[in-house]
Amino acid sequence: MDKNVVMSGMRPTGRLHIGNMMGALTNWVKLQNEYDCFFVVVDWHALTTEYKNTQDIKENIRQMVIDWISVGLDPEKCNIFVQSQVKQHAELHLLLSMITPLSWLERCPTYKEQLKQLETREINTYGFLGYPVLMATDILIYKANKVPVGKDQEAHVELCREIARRFNYLYEPVFPEPEALYTEFMVLPGIDGRKMSKSYDNYIEISASPDVIREKVKMMITDPARIRKNDPGHPDVCNVFAFHTVFNEPAKVQELKEACQKGQIGCVECKKNLADLMVARMEPIHQKRKMLEQNPKIIDEILNTGAKNARVVAEKTLEEVRDAMKML
Amino acid sequence: MDKNVVMSGMRPTGRLHIGNMMGALTNWVKLQNEYDCFFVVVDWHALTTEYKNTQDIKENIRQMVIDWISVGLDPEKCNIFVQSQVKQHAELHLLLSMITPLSWLERCPTYKEQLKQLETREINTYGFLGYPVLMATDILIYKANKVPVGKDQEAHVELCREIARRFNYLYEPVFPEPEALYTEFMVLPGIDGRKMSKSYDNYIEISASPDVIREKVKMMITDPARIRKNDPGHPDVCNVFAFHTVFNEPAKVQELKEACQKGQIGCVECKKNLADLMVARMEPIHQKRKMLEQNPKIIDEILNTGAKNARVVAEKTLEEVRDAMKML
Repeated sequence: MDKNVVMSGMRPTGRLHIGNMMGALTNWVKLQNEYDCFFVVVDWHALTTEYKNTQDIKENIRQMVIDWISVGLDPEKCNIFVQSQVKQHAELHLLLSMITPLSWLERCPTYKEQLKQLETREINTYGFLGYPVLMATDILIYKANKVPVGKDQEAHVELCREIARRFNYLYEPVFPEPEALYTEFMVLPGIDGRKMSKSYDNYIEISASPDVIREKVKMMITDPARIRKNDPGHPDVCNVFAFHTVFNEPAKVQELKEACQKGQIGCVECKKNLADLMVARMEPIHQKRKMLEQNPKIIDEILNTGAKNARVVAEKTLEEVRDAMKML
Repeated sequence: MDKNVVMSGMRPTGRLHIGNMMGALTNWVKLQNEYDCFFVVVDWHALTTEYKNTQDIKENIRQMVIDWISVGLDPEKCNIFVQSQVKQHAELHLLLSMITPLSWLERCPTYKEQLKQLETREINTYGFLGYPVLMATDILIYKANKVPVGKDQEAHVELCREIARRFNYLYEPVFPEPEALYTEFMVLPGIDGRKMSKSYDNYIEISASPDVIREKVKMMITDPARIRKNDPGHPDVCNVFAFHTVFNEPAKVQELKEACQKGQIGCVECKKNLADLMVARMEPIHQKRKMLEQNPKIIDEILNTGAKNARVVAEKTLEEVRDAMKML
């Protein structure tokens, strides 16, 4: 019996932050040991909203993949590649577009919401409407049966299942119906306490130097009710404490919590401890990053090999698809 | 200076009729001497309306291409291939879909009209809406600057020009803006006097045997006002006369016209003359057809070579496209 197949993708947004690392990436690193994984830089997807801003796309792909590898994705264990390097995605997308009712896309809850949010940016294109067909393609072409997603992507996985069912019904059963794979993972706050995000400018990059890490930690918002060092603190609303729960040992976290609540440790010291921990934790990742930046051929090689392997799987699926549809 | 490039396509509808032969095909045979021509069996297009009926698509492609070659398309002079064999069409389609405003497609005059006509057939799919993007792709991928079309396809060529302009404006000038190429050609009526069409069941196939030709000519509607043989006829409203203008020599057509108007020739004799002319005209075409049917490898070879050559041109265009868009 084959291992279950996982497919997950990220748009090439460039350097990732430690929120991405502690969230999706750490999850991927785990998944690569349990599943047959396809981790895809979905550069064609990026065009659905960013077709006017493509000038940095190559560098963004490279920096993002460097982050992936640096935090522990292992090309020996999973397939890492760029969507546009596997042309089969374009063919399957075209074929699936022929059987996907327009109404399924128009009624997709994320569609109208995104249109509204991005309404100044002329994104109401044919490709933007077809985003879920392209996503379904990425999943189905590897016959993935598990798709790690956040709640916001749930509707897309459901649409993918419907497209798979419709294909299987119209022609022959080629596709498994993929399931969303919900995983509990850390949502790391940004330095201002909101969700860490590039658009809030409250993030710390995976590639941030020790100096930048220390500086950003210093800027972190702590318990606003605590004015003097020996006031009792409220770790549960403190951003720095949230980071400690991720970067510190559980026993130390408990000690710290009590010391803070009793006013025995000040925010400055607590931040310094956190910064030390973070710098130490990021050190081997930075080493790996540096090595990968100095040897650009390694990433080229990983992406070439990844695409080559992905093409074999994708082409096999497409042969079944063409056969089922009675195409040449 | 390169020759102008012509691209034209036909959906794989199977055996063509002599209306197609005297119309589009004869025009193509002329064009192949004047232009660098890409004649494409657009099988992916067929899916926009026929995704549920694909069982005969392979045989339909073969029979149609046999007709193309039999009436005089010469693979030494033009590129003959099947759309789905040149995967680059799918990639360019996806890329162009990202820059094509949805409203351009929704407002396309042919779109709503076709939806209405075919409303029982569940064709309101994402791919059906995108038909003009796929057609623009077929044209632009060969940088065609001339597109022989009927009046009904005029809006699609205009849309193709708009997509080309938008691409050239957003990125770099890669595409020429194609022009519709209107050519005067014969519109042959069907045996009932309406336009010859498969859906009216009033057609004579290119591959029709001499017996079938004779039988169909016998069934042709002539001047309904002419009851007896020596009543004066009205060739201008006579279907058989319309065929004579195509299959007979000009001098003979003039003679016949006068004889008919004077009631000197009866419809039976006139039909027999026409049938003889048609059988004679189709004879070498049938010979060629027979040879191609007996040697299926010849068509395979033509389509393989055609696709191979088309891929080279298409890939060159795509390299420019990816480069302009700053994609990998």
